[in-house]
Amino acid sequence: MNYKLMLRTLGRTLQVEALCLLLPLLVALVYREDPRPFLLTIVLVAVLGTLLAHLHSRPDFYSREGYAVVGLIWLAFSLFGALPFWFSGEFHGFLDCLFEIVSGFTTTGASILTDIESLPRGILFWRSFSSWIGGMGVLIFTLAFLPKVGGRTQVLVQAESPGPVSSKLVPKTAQSSQILYMIYIVLTLLEILCLCLAGMPLYDASVTTFATVCTGGFSVMNASIAAYGLPACEIIITVFMLLCSLNFAVFFLVITGRARQALRSDELRFFLLAVALAIVVIFFDVRPLYDTLSHALRDTCFQVATIISTAGFSTADFAQWPTLSQTVLVLLMFLGGCAGSTAGGLKCSRVLLMFRCGRRSVRRLSHPREVKVVKLDGKAVDESTVNTVFVFFSLYCLLLAAATILVSLDGSSLTTSFTAALACISNVGPGLDAVGPTGNFAFFSPLSKLVLTLAMLIGRLEIFPVLVLLLPSTWKRS
Amino acid sequence: MNYKLMLRTLGRTLQVEALCLLLPLLVALVYREDPRPFLLTIVLVAVLGTLLAHLHSRPDFYSREGYAVVGLIWLAFSLFGALPFWFSGEFHGFLDCLFEIVSGFTTTGASILTDIESLPRGILFWRSFSSWIGGMGVLIFTLAFLPKVGGRTQVLVQAESPGPVSSKLVPKTAQSSQILYMIYIVLTLLEILCLCLAGMPLYDASVTTFATVCTGGFSVMNASIAAYGLPACEIIITVFMLLCSLNFAVFFLVITGRARQALRSDELRFFLLAVALAIVVIFFDVRPLYDTLSHALRDTCFQVATIISTAGFSTADFAQWPTLSQTVLVLLMFLGGCAGSTAGGLKCSRVLLMFRCGRRSVRRLSHPREVKVVKLDGKAVDESTVNTVFVFFSLYCLLLAAATILVSLDGSSLTTSFTAALACISNVGPGLDAVGPTGNFAFFSPLSKLVLTLAMLIGRLEIFPVLVLLLPSTWKRS
Repeated sequence: MNYKLMLRTLGRTLQVEALCLLLPLLVALVYREDPRPFLLTIVLVAVLGTLLAHLHSRPDFYSREGYAVVGLIWLAFSLFGALPFWFSGEFHGFLDCLFEIVSGFTTTGASILTDIESLPRGILFWRSFSSWIGGMGVLIFTLAFLPKVGGRTQVLVQAESPGPVSSKLVPKTAQSSQILYMIYIVLTLLEILCLCLAGMPLYDASVTTFATVCTGGFSVMNASIAAYGLPACEIIITVFMLLCSLNFAVFFLVITGRARQALRSDELRFFLLAVALAIVVIFFDVRPLYDTLSHALRDTCFQVATIISTAGFSTADFAQWPTLSQTVLVLLMFLGGCAGSTAGGLKCSRVLLMFRCGRRSVRRLSHPREVKVVKLDGKAVDESTVNTVFVFFSLYCLLLAAATILVSLDGSSLTTSFTAALACISNVGPGLDAVGPTGNFAFFSPLSKLVLTLAMLIGRLEIFPVLVLLLPSTWKRS
Repeated sequence: MNYKLMLRTLGRTLQVEALCLLLPLLVALVYREDPRPFLLTIVLVAVLGTLLAHLHSRPDFYSREGYAVVGLIWLAFSLFGALPFWFSGEFHGFLDCLFEIVSGFTTTGASILTDIESLPRGILFWRSFSSWIGGMGVLIFTLAFLPKVGGRTQVLVQAESPGPVSSKLVPKTAQSSQILYMIYIVLTLLEILCLCLAGMPLYDASVTTFATVCTGGFSVMNASIAAYGLPACEIIITVFMLLCSLNFAVFFLVITGRARQALRSDELRFFLLAVALAIVVIFFDVRPLYDTLSHALRDTCFQVATIISTAGFSTADFAQWPTLSQTVLVLLMFLGGCAGSTAGGLKCSRVLLMFRCGRRSVRRLSHPREVKVVKLDGKAVDESTVNTVFVFFSLYCLLLAAATILVSLDGSSLTTSFTAALACISNVGPGLDAVGPTGNFAFFSPLSKLVLTLAMLIGRLEIFPVLVLLLPSTWKRS
């Protein structure tokens, strides 16, 4: 293991974290709030980051270091990112701070806060901004803006990017990262503008946008988006949640005049089909609960978008909806958005690959001599990728089961324990029953909070970087 | 497709079904009940079976025909097997009869009966005996006793046997089937004897044993095994449920003096570990609910055995147990017993293979050049088997999700819908909430009953034979 390079990379990302903290510091100063939680953290993180970043090391970086360093960086980012919360004194202990910041960075949006509105604006800004940073990726951020990390940086991007395969938009990794962030920033500015035009104040529009484009779901209101009572804003947020569940390569293709190629994507079609089907089923199921068709449709679309995008905002308490709708939403929590988006879950391309593989296996029984490859976007997917997708799915289920068992020690209902674990590992945020849209995660025991925190990290990093850290052989000298 | 041979094989199995029906007919006559439901069915099935069995055909049989014919035979067996129930007039419509007999043949043990004790003894005998036949396999039964089906019969056994790979005990398929049935019959006689010695009347001992060794779980009492209030019987049933969850090859090895080889089986060890872990966790969880340690331990062992063996008897209402215990039981419903046993579920060997594959994938990230095969019992498992295991698991989850959605249309709770679908596809029987040990499946809508009936068949035949029937390309001329 090239420990020095790992630490140097960590140092670089900590420097970036210090820079990121300047923004909430500014907000705290503008609203004349106590700036010390931020000042203290910035000094600490900047000094440590700079020390580490000046380590000398060989420049070689292999897959093992790649996965391990991504796991480590996310852990360190979270531990230091929790400090402003802790210093503010508004949270009950460090574990709650850690849960909240990991929920932010992983764009889960699950909260242990019972009264969000009572918190200082600077703190809430950092909470929402953390999910904006985490949405596109801590490392991609570092590569985009501080591209001199050295070594085979593609390895890092691969380990952090969501989806079965990671492909670069342009040959250079740093340039790809910059393009991704440009698209991300444009989407962010666009949504802030739209929300302001629809009547939301700038501060609310900003924090809501941060939590939308990263599909995080943190709101600064106790009643989430429902608190504003602005139908136009709900529609805008619905659209942006869905947009940010698409593979960002789609936007790149559209910008570079290849819209037709973008529309031919199998994953995109599968995603849109899933959204459409879910909306139709749920609309007819919840229709009797509403006075007007338009309100029923708006709430249906919003809730489907918020769950499939794994954002986790809410404008209706879907924990009170009929069982059919709840079942569909739980399945959407598993599914998630497209690969290469900011959404969580299994990702559409994985599920689509598993579908096609299942069909092939059944066909093989009746046509054993037929040799067939599984295709995605017209191209053959190699068997090792297919195998990794299945292993990923199985590990996902296994870890979900383990988390459910540990959370169920608290004695909450089976639905609460299961959906809490699912909502965390899929980075959705709200689940059903006690962790539904009107609930929160405050009542869980410290053990459950720790398990759910880990589940969020495992979900965001798509299992492998975290498991590599836990494997003893990773740390052996080779 | 060799349709004629398929029909001829079907004819043979129907002849066997007619023979099987003689036993409940005898019981009805002994207890002076109406024998006509059985007489009518026997005449119908025997005539049709004999006509089909006399068809002339080419003797060749391929994988496609194998899977398709197994699916067809189970459908036909169920449709005709439901007739005595229908003719008896004790059931509400044919769908209920079909549900109950499929629940029998697939050894699920889920029931739509609300008052079991009011039914004639002949009918209840057929209900329990059907699960005894289904436990070891309709086709293996036919091959064991009418070995002149012709063609590559190993294909049929492969399609019907539970587990990732099917291996013969001795080179000849017919002889293997006979050995399996001999072990099965010895276990049956042994349990009847034990139960009688422990104080159960012969009729109750017989029907209970039929439902134990096949891990079916049908009881002739409304309160299941709890009704007898005989702790000794509960212990005997616990032991036999666990024995019948083992791969029957284990018994063959023990009988032929190779006990040490049997004990080295990875799957056996994994199964015993799962049982032990579940007992420990649940025992400490439910301990406070009981007056005495021994009662708590007995109930824990019985409930763990009944769920992991997918029998589905009950001596305690585990739907009222703490969430942790319920979660563990739900996971055991997924797991099931060993391959080559009469139990349902995913089977231990599949889960073990997935575990090992997952570990390999994580290791590969940090040691990419290492070439490693996945082993079971010291032997390398080839990659196509591994792949099929993963596809199987994914299809299992997919079909479970589809069944849950359709059942949730009824508006029962999420736990009820999900565990009903899981208990049927895993052939367990009882689930949680409204379909818990004290509940039944009577209240479901016709659509749900149909879906759950199909789920039971899909679970018992391990998906592929049913899906092959549904694939259009199976029916095309090649």
